[in-house]
Amino acid sequence: MSAKYIIGERSSHLYEIQICRGDKMNALTDAMYGDLVEQLEIAERDDAIRVIFLRSNNKHFSAGNDLADFVETEFNESSNVIKFLVSLASLKKPLVCAVSGAAVGIGTTLLLHCDLVYACDDSKFSVPFIKLGLTPEGASSKLLAQRCGTAKANDWLLTGRTFLTDEALGSRLINGSYPDMETTWNEARNIAVKLAKSSSRALQETKALLKADQIDNVIDTMRKEAIVFAEGLETEEAKAAFHAFLNR
Amino acid sequence: MSAKYIIGERSSHLYEIQICRGDKMNALTDAMYGDLVEQLEIAERDDAIRVIFLRSNNKHFSAGNDLADFVETEFNESSNVIKFLVSLASLKKPLVCAVSGAAVGIGTTLLLHCDLVYACDDSKFSVPFIKLGLTPEGASSKLLAQRCGTAKANDWLLTGRTFLTDEALGSRLINGSYPDMETTWNEARNIAVKLAKSSSRALQETKALLKADQIDNVIDTMRKEAIVFAEGLETEEAKAAFHAFLNR
Amino acid sequence: MSAKYIIGERSSHLYEIQICRGDKMNALTDAMYGDLVEQLEIAERDDAIRVIFLRSNNKHFSAGNDLADFVETEFNESSNVIKFLVSLASLKKPLVCAVSGAAVGIGTTLLLHCDLVYACDDSKFSVPFIKLGLTPEGASSKLLAQRCGTAKANDWLLTGRTFLTDEALGSRLINGSYPDMETTWNEARNIAVKLAKSSSRALQETKALLKADQIDNVIDTMRKEAIVFAEGLETEEAKAAFHAFLNR
Repeated sequence: MSAKYIIGERSSHLYEIQICRGDKMNALTDAMYGDLVEQLEIAERDDAIRVIFLRSNNKHFSAGNDLADFVETEFNESSNVIKFLVSLASLKKPLVCAVSGAAVGIGTTLLLHCDLVYACDDSKFSVPFIKLGLTPEGASSKLLAQRCGTAKANDWLLTGRTFLTDEALGSRLINGSYPDMETTWNEARNIAVKLAKSSSRALQETKALLKADQIDNVIDTMRKEAIVFAEGLETEEAKAAFHAFLNR
Repeated sequence: MSAKYIIGERSSHLYEIQICRGDKMNALTDAMYGDLVEQLEIAERDDAIRVIFLRSNNKHFSAGNDLADFVETEFNESSNVIKFLVSLASLKKPLVCAVSGAAVGIGTTLLLHCDLVYACDDSKFSVPFIKLGLTPEGASSKLLAQRCGTAKANDWLLTGRTFLTDEALGSRLINGSYPDMETTWNEARNIAVKLAKSSSRALQETKALLKADQIDNVIDTMRKEAIVFAEGLETEEAKAAFHAFLNR
Repeated sequence: MSAKYIIGERSSHLYEIQICRGDKMNALTDAMYGDLVEQLEIAERDDAIRVIFLRSNNKHFSAGNDLADFVETEFNESSNVIKFLVSLASLKKPLVCAVSGAAVGIGTTLLLHCDLVYACDDSKFSVPFIKLGLTPEGASSKLLAQRCGTAKANDWLLTGRTFLTDEALGSRLINGSYPDMETTWNEARNIAVKLAKSSSRALQETKALLKADQIDNVIDTMRKEAIVFAEGLETEEAKAAFHAFLNR
């Protein structure tokens, strides 16, 4: 039933995955994480596919976890969201991502597992776990610092504040930016298509070397984060924050 | 007797520590390191305290080690300066720091253990150990590269040159800057106060995840650096450099 | 016979090495790698030498591997190019480098082993292994991310695109830039000469601490990369790319 929210389409050597839940700012439900895992697996298995391209099909990239859905699903290490993150971290093929509008929570942390990220000038990024009394996920506690330096990682994760495309680009969270949404999608796709002209073996071996010795470490970090996250969900602060959010 | 140089004050969930030795540009003596450790311990132990804020109460942040005091105190792995650095590296609560004027030697390396650092536009940073025939301390040989990239770490530690707020901000040694000293203190304190409104558990768990697997490594690096530093103190170059400095 | 292409000259505490094969844009042959190793060893052994300075003596820094020579030499873990890279990674004395014009392939990856790098505003950098169906070398799969963040490392190694001095400086691949070639050589040499006024012990211990625990790791990465690189040379894609390049 959720399948319509996650669409995958093959075009020559490229596999394009779209998040299509515009009425909810692409908030991600447990079922949608499951569908994303399935789409990533299709792309990985298909020998003709060399590069994966991820974007939303509407104004916002993703408002992050769908909290209404989240409170109704038991969260633990085998939740679909964890499977999705592990799947992303384990991906052998290069993943190019185009961001527009809001990229909240996992909408930002998933970018850390993309090889190339391009954003629209109007994008807004945040990892506001602390505002819900919660803690980092998606290995962001480790990967943000590797990507953007420790000062930015501390700042974004401790304050939970929203930051804009300029800051994301200046901190090298993202690789480039474009003035509007359509251009961002098109230019990012063009880069992915161009990438897909390279040797599939060379692309995958280059990615493997760039991630060497790190995948286990990243997945281990995700699991540690998930335990602390799950404990946080049981605190009064988190419960009050969820209640306030859901009864806005 | 040195207590007047290090002042700690609690205000709601914030603990503010000030370095108050304006007549010596806040050069730090063995006794002052001891007092800093004590203040950090007070803040860590007090359950009501969520965030620590560090600044000077005068024009300069710190001229670094007080060399006149330093040559009269035996330096080894259990010196107060090492205890201070280990205490900083082990801190569980977030530490926000405001810098103005000179931040020399340990005045800069201690920033690497702060979670958020803001500086006045007039600040001058340097890690000029090499100019005294000495070597990095405070785990700066590892943490500078993690924070600012290897090129900047090499540059600052090998040349010992002074760099200004613009370069510190562009290299993301610091998180932000403000035009004058009072504004820097006030804005940095405001950020600390705002941080202290978050869940204490979430703040500490976020910080712990950001530092995961690293604290032992950092302290180990400090100890290795301290051994090389102590050997350096015995060389003719260092003795000549100290003599020249103290007889300016 | 190749000795004329690699020239070393001592001047006070500085050892200056020049790459002098202007007619081939300083493309590096197996013999030239051997000569570079020899020059580095001379500089390391000579107690009077404190700092090494590397540059080309002509318009371009280096077009990278001489492919015509490369296809005639068996490539394996004991090739001169690997010896050169291991020698660079193991160097105890600080290495300052001046770049002008093209820095292709190993012309860019060797910079990752230099302590300070300055470039002319006209420089062009690239690590275009993927365009030959090949994969990273020189520990670039690890060191680029440490120096410039993961986003830039992914971008440069997956796309193989050329980037200019502005981007290299903004990403902190290099330490500084100058408007023309002669100025770059002179200013970089001045910095090296100034560095060579510091204590030899302090310089080497500072460099050792900056690289602590990393040298084995870097050499191990180089060896892993070399195995994947050698496998790539046997693929049809690489053979076709070499053929096309050599028959331009």
